[in-house]
Amino acid sequence: MRVVVAPDSFKGSLTARDACAAIAAGVRRAAPAARVRAVPMADGGEGTLDCFLGARGGRRVEVAATDPLGRPVTARYGLSGEGTSAVVELAAASGLPLVEDVPPDPLGAATTGTGALVADAVRRGAREVLVCVGGSASTDGGAGLLSALGFRFLDASGAELPPGGAALARLAAIDDADVPAEVRATRFRVACDVTNPLTGPSGAAAVFGPQKGAAPAQVRELDAALTRFADVLADRYGVRVHDLPGAGAAGGACGGLAGALGAEPAPGAALVAAAVGLPAALAGADLVITGEGRVDGQSASGKVVSAVAALARERGVRAVALAGGVAGPLDGLHALGLTAAFSLADGPRALDELRSEAAPLLSALADQVVRLVL
Amino acid sequence: MRVVVAPDSFKGSLTARDACAAIAAGVRRAAPAARVRAVPMADGGEGTLDCFLGARGGRRVEVAATDPLGRPVTARYGLSGEGTSAVVELAAASGLPLVEDVPPDPLGAATTGTGALVADAVRRGAREVLVCVGGSASTDGGAGLLSALGFRFLDASGAELPPGGAALARLAAIDDADVPAEVRATRFRVACDVTNPLTGPSGAAAVFGPQKGAAPAQVRELDAALTRFADVLADRYGVRVHDLPGAGAAGGACGGLAGALGAEPAPGAALVAAAVGLPAALAGADLVITGEGRVDGQSASGKVVSAVAALARERGVRAVALAGGVAGPLDGLHALGLTAAFSLADGPRALDELRSEAAPLLSALADQVVRLVL
Repeated sequence: MRVVVAPDSFKGSLTARDACAAIAAGVRRAAPAARVRAVPMADGGEGTLDCFLGARGGRRVEVAATDPLGRPVTARYGLSGEGTSAVVELAAASGLPLVEDVPPDPLGAATTGTGALVADAVRRGAREVLVCVGGSASTDGGAGLLSALGFRFLDASGAELPPGGAALARLAAIDDADVPAEVRATRFRVACDVTNPLTGPSGAAAVFGPQKGAAPAQVRELDAALTRFADVLADRYGVRVHDLPGAGAAGGACGGLAGALGAEPAPGAALVAAAVGLPAALAGADLVITGEGRVDGQSASGKVVSAVAALARERGVRAVALAGGVAGPLDGLHALGLTAAFSLADGPRALDELRSEAAPLLSALADQVVRLVL
Repeated sequence: MRVVVAPDSFKGSLTARDACAAIAAGVRRAAPAARVRAVPMADGGEGTLDCFLGARGGRRVEVAATDPLGRPVTARYGLSGEGTSAVVELAAASGLPLVEDVPPDPLGAATTGTGALVADAVRRGAREVLVCVGGSASTDGGAGLLSALGFRFLDASGAELPPGGAALARLAAIDDADVPAEVRATRFRVACDVTNPLTGPSGAAAVFGPQKGAAPAQVRELDAALTRFADVLADRYGVRVHDLPGAGAAGGACGGLAGALGAEPAPGAALVAAAVGLPAALAGADLVITGEGRVDGQSASGKVVSAVAALARERGVRAVALAGGVAGPLDGLHALGLTAAFSLADGPRALDELRSEAAPLLSALADQVVRLVL
């Protein structure tokens, strides 16, 4: 019997690696001869870098970069062991927590620092770069990130625009003559946890601007600037990102990468699954056990359990989710490929008990699940 | 797919019949084409009569009997539809609650009333009688019960002993000349929920006497009387019940029935399973789903889950238990034949929530289990 163990972390109790160990112990208890392969998973948020580095034998690379306001900051990204693949978390250099010591600057904050990490990865040989968004301080459409890769954003007089989303209102042209061939040859993927478009009432500025400190008038200003940005991207590259689902993630960085570099916004879990080699691990498996803190109807869109279930279905592998809480109906997940889901609760329990006992409870539950499948 | 649903009641929330309905609904949701057979179960305690009557199309028969102190009481037992099989609950005519209105009489209390029910069943044609013990007020070794069936318990002068356990100290002989042939032709089974022997420090008097009101000196008196009773039974019938496991149940009634009528004390759940036709229902089934309020190491001895598991193993059927609480290790149950056990808790929940939501939670869990087995 071949079993793949591929859970997300259990927020508040177990890392994905710890969850793997607990589940694997239960599997081996039920089936001592089983071949168990652990593939810790993540959804593009917290823990993604650890999963990637663990799976690909990689390391963290430290880079002198800039924070959203242009101040020096040291940030790290993950480079795979063979150096051809990188994972860059936008929050590392461009996260909101980096600028919480000063008043917010929603109009001027930029993703330039993240661009420095990406540029470093490409320079070192990475030709696949996964950018994990979430928690950004900026609404610059990723213009800062792109400028660090060689793109130049110019006004009508040919002068380069200053950093920040607001300046994009004056964008007249994009000069990409200095973008290195290595950047053009790189495949960019953007892990998006939202499906908001770049502009409009559910766009980057309107929905996420306020939590970055934008007042109503500034939201309108940023939305107009992003619209201008998208117009120019469409003229220059023939790609309309205004209404692209997910383009509004990370202050529109998703949209900018899609327009200028052909990146496709996709749910994080599916991209992480590919990056950590889950599809290959599932080939020939009899069962995959996934899991996360909570499984519900929402899990059908872009979380680890749904990504694992979809991959399992493609390969005819039974997929079981173990979770702290399971809230039905699960029809959407079943349709996607999830065979069944079980809560690790073993009876009446308080939330903090479930959290502190999560490892032994996961082991016991995995044991029972494997006995039933055998 | 053929699925048998055979749970015990979930104490405090669902009868066995309600639990069957909830589980069956979940099975059908997962597998609309499944053939589902519901066999509500019990362990010889509360709910046993309902299970038996439901399964065998029977009815309750009302009898004018006597309570443990000889006072008139109307009590009922169950007779199968075809009239050949009966279930008599000892508590119906000989239960402790019947005499709680007066000071306890541990020396004189007797099981004579239960004997009236058994005699009525035999008179009506029952040739299989299942006696469910538990909750008795007496410590008479079942002498009262036997006397109602025609046995005469005599002292050295040939006079009949008065009712109650204490009188057995003077037992010199047993006269069974008046026991009808129908009684001798009847197969008696006694559902015991304990394994205590008839006499000695873990016997009927020592362990259960105090809760029936026996003071320490009375416990010693009753133990000596039961020893005398067992000695005479051994002389007369060649069966030593002094140390027979289970003989101490119901104030030794188990021991008396074993000695005088060849009844074998057995765990109630296994006897109920036979009485409700579970073995036949399991033939050709793919899966049996059982369950009870709580599954733990104790379940390995004589409860519904273990009885169902053992029957399932004999027939090569996978057995899954659903329970309010599951407390490992379950090694004993797995060894017995239980494939797996799952708690119906779907996350952090208080006990009263689990109880009030038991039906929908059971449905949801059965749904997931069947999806995994399919």
